[in-house]
Amino acid sequence: MSSTKTEVEQANAAYAASFDKGDLALPPARGFLILTCMDARLDPAKYAGLSEGDAHVVRNAGGRATDDAIRSLVISHKLLGTREWFVIHHTDCGMLFFDDATMGDLLAGSLETAELSESGFRNASEPGGSPEGRYVKWHTIRDQEAAVIEDVMRIRAHPLVNPAIPIYGYVYDVRTGQLNEVVRATEAGRPTG
Amino acid sequence: MSSTKTEVEQANAAYAASFDKGDLALPPARGFLILTCMDARLDPAKYAGLSEGDAHVVRNAGGRATDDAIRSLVISHKLLGTREWFVIHHTDCGMLFFDDATMGDLLAGSLETAELSESGFRNASEPGGSPEGRYVKWHTIRDQEAAVIEDVMRIRAHPLVNPAIPIYGYVYDVRTGQLNEVVRATEAGRPTG
Repeated sequence: MSSTKTEVEQANAAYAASFDKGDLALPPARGFLILTCMDARLDPAKYAGLSEGDAHVVRNAGGRATDDAIRSLVISHKLLGTREWFVIHHTDCGMLFFDDATMGDLLAGSLETAELSESGFRNASEPGGSPEGRYVKWHTIRDQEAAVIEDVMRIRAHPLVNPAIPIYGYVYDVRTGQLNEVVRATEAGRPTG
Repeated sequence: MSSTKTEVEQANAAYAASFDKGDLALPPARGFLILTCMDARLDPAKYAGLSEGDAHVVRNAGGRATDDAIRSLVISHKLLGTREWFVIHHTDCGMLFFDDATMGDLLAGSLETAELSESGFRNASEPGGSPEGRYVKWHTIRDQEAAVIEDVMRIRAHPLVNPAIPIYGYVYDVRTGQLNEVVRATEAGRPTG
């Protein structure tokens, strides 16, 4: 068996052995949601002070306001009662270091992990790639603060989003652990700087 | 200011004050990824034993293998080197309690949070809904174990997923904190029970 799998299962057994959260309700107790990046350095429960049961956490590559993220946000408010949403990107995000053309080329060459050199990502070998990567929008980022603002605006403008929900925008600094606010969304209007 | 926003910012200030993880590298140190639900009761770092920097975590409503989740998975392996993936759904998931028709009806009536009664979700008032909810696939779940198996199979069959990546499937029990494995994916083949 994979050592990673064994480690995860052993860590879970230790967690379950002292588990005392079995009576938590389904709706988030503190009524909010965080949309953030999948980046390994980010622990939203730690950086935002969450305990089990407190808040919904949606994560994807970049913390982007994709259609699928908005699917989750709408379910969160409409069925489970969250009333405030936080969009939290971060410094040194992997989404800053490539674009759709690069990713399409890399995947067309090989499905293996690319190497990162000073000149950017490149394939070490070229066996068995796929052109499908050219048909995917990867939602890369050129300017981190601008991306947060655009994502807040995209959520704000969505026809299924209740205009009464405040949406806050932050960039988390992976060097300091700090959340730095970049956009303060008014309830129904556009974000204000 | 929202009291929630103040609480999050105060919790973050406390986290940053003792932050000592500023030197972590971008690629996940332990080389794996977890795809799981946004549910507030789930803390993947706790239930799987993750520290900051260890692993990618992708979360959406249901922990489903949507196209956007697969976008994140492919970036995780191709550019950031994860080599094993865990798909982790959970008991008492909100996605079990509605279907696309129900959600379309609810959103057509109102964008406000629905009330949950013994007969299911219903709108308390009917001001300002939108028909757009009928055009969204909500990715609800009828059978939790079957959904995990199907999601592992969907990822396994994706043309941009390296067949060498093992994909494991679990249901997390919100009453006990335990991960229960439901599918053990062979490297290149179909999941085996």
